[in-house]
Amino acid sequence: MKAYPYLEAVRGKSPVVHHLTNWVTIYDCAQVVKSFGASPVMAHAPEEAADMAGIASALVLNIGTLTTEFVESMKIAAKAANNKGIPVVLDVCGAGATPFRDRKSFEILDSAKVDIIKGNSSEIARIAGRDVRTRGVDATEVSHDLREIASSLAKARTCSVVITGKEDIVADAKALYLVGNGHGMMSHVVGTGCMAASVIGAFAGASPDDLTAAAAAGLACYEIAAELAVTLSSGPASFKSHLFDSIYRLEKKDVEAMQKITT
Amino acid sequence: MKAYPYLEAVRGKSPVVHHLTNWVTIYDCAQVVKSFGASPVMAHAPEEAADMAGIASALVLNIGTLTTEFVESMKIAAKAANNKGIPVVLDVCGAGATPFRDRKSFEILDSAKVDIIKGNSSEIARIAGRDVRTRGVDATEVSHDLREIASSLAKARTCSVVITGKEDIVADAKALYLVGNGHGMMSHVVGTGCMAASVIGAFAGASPDDLTAAAAAGLACYEIAAELAVTLSSGPASFKSHLFDSIYRLEKKDVEAMQKITT
Amino acid sequence: MKAYPYLEAVRGKSPVVHHLTNWVTIYDCAQVVKSFGASPVMAHAPEEAADMAGIASALVLNIGTLTTEFVESMKIAAKAANNKGIPVVLDVCGAGATPFRDRKSFEILDSAKVDIIKGNSSEIARIAGRDVRTRGVDATEVSHDLREIASSLAKARTCSVVITGKEDIVADAKALYLVGNGHGMMSHVVGTGCMAASVIGAFAGASPDDLTAAAAAGLACYEIAAELAVTLSSGPASFKSHLFDSIYRLEKKDVEAMQKITT
Repeated sequence: MKAYPYLEAVRGKSPVVHHLTNWVTIYDCAQVVKSFGASPVMAHAPEEAADMAGIASALVLNIGTLTTEFVESMKIAAKAANNKGIPVVLDVCGAGATPFRDRKSFEILDSAKVDIIKGNSSEIARIAGRDVRTRGVDATEVSHDLREIASSLAKARTCSVVITGKEDIVADAKALYLVGNGHGMMSHVVGTGCMAASVIGAFAGASPDDLTAAAAAGLACYEIAAELAVTLSSGPASFKSHLFDSIYRLEKKDVEAMQKITT
Repeated sequence: MKAYPYLEAVRGKSPVVHHLTNWVTIYDCAQVVKSFGASPVMAHAPEEAADMAGIASALVLNIGTLTTEFVESMKIAAKAANNKGIPVVLDVCGAGATPFRDRKSFEILDSAKVDIIKGNSSEIARIAGRDVRTRGVDATEVSHDLREIASSLAKARTCSVVITGKEDIVADAKALYLVGNGHGMMSHVVGTGCMAASVIGAFAGASPDDLTAAAAAGLACYEIAAELAVTLSSGPASFKSHLFDSIYRLEKKDVEAMQKITT
Repeated sequence: MKAYPYLEAVRGKSPVVHHLTNWVTIYDCAQVVKSFGASPVMAHAPEEAADMAGIASALVLNIGTLTTEFVESMKIAAKAANNKGIPVVLDVCGAGATPFRDRKSFEILDSAKVDIIKGNSSEIARIAGRDVRTRGVDATEVSHDLREIASSLAKARTCSVVITGKEDIVADAKALYLVGNGHGMMSHVVGTGCMAASVIGAFAGASPDDLTAAAAAGLACYEIAAELAVTLSSGPASFKSHLFDSIYRLEKKDVEAMQKITT
């Protein structure tokens, strides 16, 4: 599988990516989408959540700083996205940290069709029904077989599942991709996980016919840019700056030479 | 018209600029105001919106992530600003994207005196009653004569109107300025439009006797800094960093040599 | 008093620092905690505020963009933190600017045990009952004796008190530290005050047995990193980027050579 054509699709179509996301990393979620050449929009009022989904090519939901009211808006947006037939990405940020997050994650999943569920190892394990705890929003070690968790959750929910980590797992009922790109510096920057969900939204919006491949391609491009950025950086802040710049300038030759996607 | 004296006024008076703005770019709105030498404050609780406007020299409203409750606080703050006689800037962010944004924009405009309405081409065209759509928060092409739209909206609402774009239009019932500074890189950075409204607020707060000239001068200074920043940048994130640094260091000689304001 | 062992404790224990903070600087509060090697989590829903405090090692409250509902969540989180016995830091951001901020600050202080009260000179003077005004969120000159204010407030509330400024004052009923590190550039960057509270939270969470010393050590380390960063910077944005990088790389030799803590 080649990632570059999916990046070309994002740049060529410039999909509008509607977000209902958290207040911590909302800027970076918007900027990463824009750096890839797509058009972010953030709108959460219940009165317009459906209308905004209606002009979008993808919807990204992230429960990082959820409230009951915010989740109600998410459901409205997700149903509108379903009606329009655009992909819905859900980042189950912090699932496994509190019962409220678990409950609200399942509420969203049960009230609309989510096309791509994304999280770190302990978040996804929790959503797959395993008895694990997440340390705030940072993953804890999960002893279970993550590939099996991804595939079975994908089957149970008829969707794609993304588990981010040193090696990302992207699975649906039939396919499974492993993405080996990225760098440990990403874990020292707040929001790299949230941004991954937004990137997946942009790639899914531009290539809605194969969401699993689009998600894997998006992660690979994002993480290749991270590998390029880290060589220019002296710490987490300069790294994040170079990450956005590298995404903006990302070239075909780099993606082709550096991508580490296996099936 | 010379822009530099307006910058000197901002630095000399350090006006407090009260914001009720969106959650995406709120940090950058505050930082741009501070980088120019003014003092930003963000406060939206209905219980204090009026009190905070009371200690401010300008009020900036931005509907980027509006809710019904948030707009109620905006109205309270705007009325308090009117009573105190300080300028009110409204960024009609995303007008034309959803009926809710249009409706709430008109509600604000009808409930208090807005001194400066600011938006991109499709946002302002929508507020001027034209049948256009905005693509999320990104402008769409507008076939109408933008100068005519700005001037007639300014007359209809007895205010100044700012349309940002490759060439910014700043108009009131009598005067019209064109600001030719800026750089295409600004459109690759989330929040450059929101920051423009905050800059206008700082300049209006420091020079309340001619808001239209102050707005034009503020845009010119901001965009001259952008031109200086882009020469040092390798992408959108390093550009934004250099933009703040260039604003902070902006010198008389650069403003005088580079300003492109025509009438 | 040596600051470095307190930094080692943060890096070694990686405490989870739960925040209910403002929407302006929330990202930077999280990133500063992460850059020091701790684990930030931001969660404000009343349904989970107590649960999240329950998995944390410290709680940081900041009223920068307070609302009535948000303060209710703060009280829930603070009581849960009290029950668990983890330190609670309160940044009385903007106290003295509006009656609402004063009233809500006292409500929080009276409804739960706050272990460390932090603010700039006019904010703390206001909380200590002095008749001063704050200029939005920027300090005004306070003619009172700040050391006396810090010590007497610490005694009255049985807590530690931090007054940030050119020279920081950190006091409890018995001890008083002066931290002379830092740089004037910090006042040109939005959020350096909020970040100071988050840093104090991380250090307090890692060294809960002497909160006053931990707060002083945290401020010293943060401000030493600022001194290192400013030598590499050309303005407020590059300074902030270098600040995070310098925190991430901060070495024993620099802390030991540069710390200016007196008693």
